[in-house]
Amino acid sequence: MSNTPIILKKTTIATSRLFRIESLDIEFSNGEQRNYERLARGNPGGGAVLVVPLLDDDTVLLIREYSAGVHRYELGLPKGKTDAGESFFEAANRELKEEVGYGANNLHHLASFSIAPSYLEHMTEIIIARDLYPEKLDGDEPEELEVVPWQLSNINGLLATGECTEARSIAALFMAVEHLKKL
Amino acid sequence: MSNTPIILKKTTIATSRLFRIESLDIEFSNGEQRNYERLARGNPGGGAVLVVPLLDDDTVLLIREYSAGVHRYELGLPKGKTDAGESFFEAANRELKEEVGYGANNLHHLASFSIAPSYLEHMTEIIIARDLYPEKLDGDEPEELEVVPWQLSNINGLLATGECTEARSIAALFMAVEHLKKL
Repeated sequence: MSNTPIILKKTTIATSRLFRIESLDIEFSNGEQRNYERLARGNPGGGAVLVVPLLDDDTVLLIREYSAGVHRYELGLPKGKTDAGESFFEAANRELKEEVGYGANNLHHLASFSIAPSYLEHMTEIIIARDLYPEKLDGDEPEELEVVPWQLSNINGLLATGECTEARSIAALFMAVEHLKKL
Repeated sequence: MSNTPIILKKTTIATSRLFRIESLDIEFSNGEQRNYERLARGNPGGGAVLVVPLLDDDTVLLIREYSAGVHRYELGLPKGKTDAGESFFEAANRELKEEVGYGANNLHHLASFSIAPSYLEHMTEIIIARDLYPEKLDGDEPEELEVVPWQLSNINGLLATGECTEARSIAALFMAVEHLKKL
């Protein structure tokens, strides 16, 4: 593997409420130079979590939620940004309570995912939540989210619905199955 | 499921070489209104492909590539945007020739992934490439990409390297395994 390229210059070229676009001038170890643009994290130091809530070893709780990026409802795993000062586990449990109506006694960090590593700085922490108990927290959702229990042994059936398209949810579900095999 | 929310107003609030940030005023079927920001597709009408190149039924060809978003090398599947007028299959075969040094006689559309559906409009088409033959096309890569053959039966070993973090690559590899079981 080559040495990691050097950042010659980093500039913020646009900022909005949620996003910050950076320009990076990069020099590779062979002397080649390129300019890249990337979307920088909106909450510096913070991050995002995606939760795999397991009601039992074969039942995962999905939510059906409006997704403005693709402007349609998407069936997938609950997720959200960490609030200031929150650990990933605290954020996962809060999102679970807000979006699914459960808390978890058992939280396990499964993986750290990049999303589009060539142009997004963002990472998402994948947390498996087990030993659930009912607890509802009010979130900032504009409407009640529909909770959809699904059999983990039927991921292929979920994909066939066409409603679950998010790579993070799909990867996390397959990895959760692998994880449970080892328990 | 509720009716899809209505877009009351859509505005471009920032534009750069690669990105366009949109503001969406959305009204839900219960009357609630919210403002969302999303990153719109940079190449309208176009898209992106991610290729699963199979040298044989248990060997996938990965590449190790500098990823500016996360500023490090990432081990994953070859990918890229479609050029104007290109089909997804044409784009997949071109990216394969540029990044891996193979063409494919057999291309199959496996899935359409969203990446971060709450704030990205982008979708990625996942293409399985089989019946490969050596053919190298010059791309615009700043350095030669390292091609890394990996056993499909050892995805867990790949994840354990910590070098393969991209949710799209991980989800596509697991789905490729499921697809091959059905052949």
